[in-house]
Amino acid sequence: MLVNGEQHDTIAIMDRGFQYGDGLFETIEVRANQPIFLEQHLKRLNADSKRLYLPQIDVDLLHSEIHQLCQNVGNAVLKIIITRGSGGRGYRQPDVIQPTRILSLYPFPDYPKSYYFDGIVARICKTRLGLNPDLAGIKHLNRLEQVMARAEWNDAAIQEGIMLDFNGRVIEGTMTNLFYVKNCQVFTASLNLCGIAGVLRGWILEQIPVMEHDFFIHDLSAADEIFVCNSVIGIWGIRELNGQIYSANKITQNLQLMLESEKQKQVTYAS
Amino acid sequence: MLVNGEQHDTIAIMDRGFQYGDGLFETIEVRANQPIFLEQHLKRLNADSKRLYLPQIDVDLLHSEIHQLCQNVGNAVLKIIITRGSGGRGYRQPDVIQPTRILSLYPFPDYPKSYYFDGIVARICKTRLGLNPDLAGIKHLNRLEQVMARAEWNDAAIQEGIMLDFNGRVIEGTMTNLFYVKNCQVFTASLNLCGIAGVLRGWILEQIPVMEHDFFIHDLSAADEIFVCNSVIGIWGIRELNGQIYSANKITQNLQLMLESEKQKQVTYAS
Repeated sequence: MLVNGEQHDTIAIMDRGFQYGDGLFETIEVRANQPIFLEQHLKRLNADSKRLYLPQIDVDLLHSEIHQLCQNVGNAVLKIIITRGSGGRGYRQPDVIQPTRILSLYPFPDYPKSYYFDGIVARICKTRLGLNPDLAGIKHLNRLEQVMARAEWNDAAIQEGIMLDFNGRVIEGTMTNLFYVKNCQVFTASLNLCGIAGVLRGWILEQIPVMEHDFFIHDLSAADEIFVCNSVIGIWGIRELNGQIYSANKITQNLQLMLESEKQKQVTYAS
Repeated sequence: MLVNGEQHDTIAIMDRGFQYGDGLFETIEVRANQPIFLEQHLKRLNADSKRLYLPQIDVDLLHSEIHQLCQNVGNAVLKIIITRGSGGRGYRQPDVIQPTRILSLYPFPDYPKSYYFDGIVARICKTRLGLNPDLAGIKHLNRLEQVMARAEWNDAAIQEGIMLDFNGRVIEGTMTNLFYVKNCQVFTASLNLCGIAGVLRGWILEQIPVMEHDFFIHDLSAADEIFVCNSVIGIWGIRELNGQIYSANKITQNLQLMLESEKQKQVTYAS
């Protein structure tokens, strides 16, 4: 792990990331030493920094540290955390913000291949997402809602939980964004009141026509296909949700192939 | 600072308190070496732990560490942080939770006496509190809303910002609970959808009749008195909000005297 460029595995207790969750993070797939969608992740980090009144990221410095960290890692997960650093008085931020920058590598998770090829089993969570337009979309460090939702089940046969917002709209999975397909049209939640605007979600929106709108559980019941995505798992179809079986997977499979091709391109281009 | 009983000023980066804000905190006034309202703080910590599926606090151990830390400190602020510790996979908590316990002391803030005797100036924040009944009332480590609200102003003449929820209800200050008085009746916000159920708020509810209800900015405009409270500042009247002057302060002053008397009693009883 690198903390502001130095090897540490601890952080100051006074750091506002710890005291208040006052910061941001990115979770990035590293494949054959190459961070996938790195530009998109850094772009989002900068956009989210702006929304939280954090200083703009030194992208060159981050690039150099990421290169240093990933050069011999093969396949892994890279996590970047940026906090508002220490200082200030209570919630009040310091006059001069000196962010803390943490890069850490984790083994790539060993998910069974069937999740990718056959789809996963999902459930609907009781824990709801709160509504807050000021923080909606941001990948910030206040993630208790996700922790509470993920604590609802302990059944290894269920891989993801779907979260609704306070008004009953379907928003996303605990660790993924969610899409559904009905009559060859693809839909996903608009994230103006809650949710995390994932990098892979953004990439999918650029590849195919997707309608961002408000939808509910009954829309999922009537869906032809449902899939979830994030930067580590890629795209997984849902084969069972609340006991209902989804057998179509044509658009999901097409997107999986497009994504695989994009990743291969990034790995090849870099090497 | 004591981390699980040992002197450290850092915490593991892998701690879920840092990764997700997965934990709780208490901020306690220490007066003449005596933590004020300690039983109430520990009671809330246990109640909040239960709501977050954290193990119950070892109260005897905490008592012993607090006593050790505060025995010669005089006047100070004691902060207790409890996190879900390290482990688990992503948002999923570990099967066996080993919480991290952090006790730290800070100098008692040097607020001008006029805040107590003459009241403070407050403003209305643009940042709204999100609605989430599952987390409402809990003093957890996800405090970005408060950070964002406190970042809205940098004018030293303004001491507190009042926060509304997503539906426009007045809830609390960025660091305080809020009460108002109209025709000798005292009101405060019900905290079933958002807000922090402060220990001092709880004490006031036990001392005098208070109606918990939904109210709005126009109710504050029509109020006779407004006051805010927390465990460090005690009770401060608001003498100016959004340019409007509040000159009555009879009930506020009475509560200040009752609180001072209660604190003196706790200090005397302990020594």
